[in-house]
Amino acid sequence: MSERIEIDAKMVEKYIIELAAFGAYADTGVWRTVYSPEWVAATDQYAQWCEEAGLRVRRDAVGNVWGRLEGTQGGKCIVSGSHIDSQTPGGRYDGALGALAGLIALRVLKEQFGQPKKPLEAVAFCEEESSRFPSANFWGSRAITGRIGPSDPDTVIGFGGETIAQAMREVGLDPARIPEAKREDIEAFIELHIEQGPILEQAGYPVAVVNAITGIRHYNVELTGMQNHAGAFPMDIRRDPMQGFAEIAAGVVNTAHRWGRPAVTTVGRVTAYPNGTAVVPSRVEFSIDARHPDPAKCEELYRTHERLMREVAERRNLGLEWTIQINHAACPSDPAIVDLLQGAARDQGVPALTMASGAGHDSQQMAAIARVAMIFVRSKDGRSHTPEEFSSLEDIVAGIRVLAEGLRRLAY
Amino acid sequence: MSERIEIDAKMVEKYIIELAAFGAYADTGVWRTVYSPEWVAATDQYAQWCEEAGLRVRRDAVGNVWGRLEGTQGGKCIVSGSHIDSQTPGGRYDGALGALAGLIALRVLKEQFGQPKKPLEAVAFCEEESSRFPSANFWGSRAITGRIGPSDPDTVIGFGGETIAQAMREVGLDPARIPEAKREDIEAFIELHIEQGPILEQAGYPVAVVNAITGIRHYNVELTGMQNHAGAFPMDIRRDPMQGFAEIAAGVVNTAHRWGRPAVTTVGRVTAYPNGTAVVPSRVEFSIDARHPDPAKCEELYRTHERLMREVAERRNLGLEWTIQINHAACPSDPAIVDLLQGAARDQGVPALTMASGAGHDSQQMAAIARVAMIFVRSKDGRSHTPEEFSSLEDIVAGIRVLAEGLRRLAY
Repeated sequence: MSERIEIDAKMVEKYIIELAAFGAYADTGVWRTVYSPEWVAATDQYAQWCEEAGLRVRRDAVGNVWGRLEGTQGGKCIVSGSHIDSQTPGGRYDGALGALAGLIALRVLKEQFGQPKKPLEAVAFCEEESSRFPSANFWGSRAITGRIGPSDPDTVIGFGGETIAQAMREVGLDPARIPEAKREDIEAFIELHIEQGPILEQAGYPVAVVNAITGIRHYNVELTGMQNHAGAFPMDIRRDPMQGFAEIAAGVVNTAHRWGRPAVTTVGRVTAYPNGTAVVPSRVEFSIDARHPDPAKCEELYRTHERLMREVAERRNLGLEWTIQINHAACPSDPAIVDLLQGAARDQGVPALTMASGAGHDSQQMAAIARVAMIFVRSKDGRSHTPEEFSSLEDIVAGIRVLAEGLRRLAY
Repeated sequence: MSERIEIDAKMVEKYIIELAAFGAYADTGVWRTVYSPEWVAATDQYAQWCEEAGLRVRRDAVGNVWGRLEGTQGGKCIVSGSHIDSQTPGGRYDGALGALAGLIALRVLKEQFGQPKKPLEAVAFCEEESSRFPSANFWGSRAITGRIGPSDPDTVIGFGGETIAQAMREVGLDPARIPEAKREDIEAFIELHIEQGPILEQAGYPVAVVNAITGIRHYNVELTGMQNHAGAFPMDIRRDPMQGFAEIAAGVVNTAHRWGRPAVTTVGRVTAYPNGTAVVPSRVEFSIDARHPDPAKCEELYRTHERLMREVAERRNLGLEWTIQINHAACPSDPAIVDLLQGAARDQGVPALTMASGAGHDSQQMAAIARVAMIFVRSKDGRSHTPEEFSSLEDIVAGIRVLAEGLRRLAY
């Protein structure tokens, strides 16, 4: 058995509440988009807490904040953190909790175990939610992995029409220097995050070790038929895209349902044209969001959905086109770190499920340059992306203890 | 065999093209809403043509234009006509053709057979399309049947925010006098109209006698579930209103399809909330348009749809509410007039199908005060409510010959 990691719950609560004050929205919400004044204030606070914890603070070219604890042996570093931006509005926990967890874990490890062998770093990523720039797409972690293209700063446009380059300049960052944010000295990255789903709550676990992040594909589909009078056109000669839509929407969801967890498929968006009560539509546009954490099964799920769409469109004599708007490969965690975190949880007496993440996370990006794994903390009612999201202080402390013990095993 | 009714096709074409000039839209379209300047000009033209035909012209309190040919025996009159307003844009034939057909039939009958025994009238109803005032709802024929309520003029609001009372005053009509438009001296009303569907074209008939107008009900349905993250919420615990919608939309349409002609059901309108790709919707609103010309089967169709909605919502644990926005009873034609018109078609050598109307018409209103029936003229590709709607001059002349012979049989 390892030594028990001691976490001061009052300190954790203080950090959460004080960080939530930057961009506070209604009682428990947060509205903190990247490069906004609230975001600047939050990163300043995070940097100050890092300094108070005895970490060396650095801000990189896109505004990620790093706090570093040097190791006696040097070499590649072990990193933990998450994003500091929020949904509009979001809650206090999504992202922010992981950034704080990294900071708290390093502070506690330093206090309890002194200097590590390998360097340890905590990080607050500048952007993950795409809540100000819909195509920002993991701006913070993409900068670190060198995946921001040269034209991106001037082509990533905010909901208000501004480019992300303009927004960066307004907070004193130079878009031309983005390549400098790239790192090649990270050995492992562990991200703590709220679950955002109900699996831990229903299974009765405070914490999970995440063994994979789901692959995600977003289809934008258009079915076209023939617009007709809803009374004067007999059923048997219609070419009704709404019927094709109903069959496809039911079919793709039933496929995921039959496959069982962790497969999911969602039809969240639909628009009919002309959208009149007494008119057989000419066209129906809709989305399909399909996810699976196993790379091979993910591809099979996509193929199954595509087969159904083609079959329905052909049988119903409808036009069919689709574009793929998001396509993230499934990202298995590093098996050795998953084992190490499960061992850490057992040693710390924290019951921990092993599960896949159905949501995307910065860890997917970080996997391009480092071994990654995640820790989930139970979400009340599985909610997130809302001011009502909540995780108990007890569960949060349990999650940070697992994280800290995991970092200790990797760095000491 | 009756005498052949002679119709001058060139005159018919001239009337159609000249009337279409009032509110002309692009090459073949018409944009002529009730009480607009184009509408005023069209009614003036119609009145002038009635005078030229030797009819006594009268405009009633809502702006319906009547042309009367007195009968030697007096008594209740035989009327034919349709509406002179259009969709936005519509074509040259929907409504306008029936108003002209009544006028042309009376002109030809007077020329060929002299004065009738019973009075004959042609009418151009002021409004049927609800294209300026969405709740005008057969304004012209409702005035004649006394079905416009005292509060209607100030509560029927146009798409531009104006009341129909204001619009009436602007063209010199006094809303307080609407009750004067009511008539109790109409024995029979026969309306000629384009089919607006493909049945005649597919069956190879130029003309149909309409034996019933469909009953119509419009449901506005709301299904509510639980909004969730599309990745983090397993399929087996979702309450997804989009799935309820897909099952109901497929089910109600399949019911009508299985029943076969003339049952129809259409889901033309759907709106999801929040309508995001990666979000299980909280709520889906949609319409159901269900129609059947047989009153008992119409009720059975509605009950079948309602049962399905309740069953799906209960099984899927979804909230379900609906309102009924339009509810017109099925309207059988007068059987004796249907027989008379079929006899007229045979005598005039015009092949005539007998069929139900899947669209609503002024005749439904007129049935409250008179025996009614309709004549349909074949529509190219079944199209209407578009500038592209088209019926051939040959078919139109055939339809007017059937109408004129029918009126002759009733009035001479």
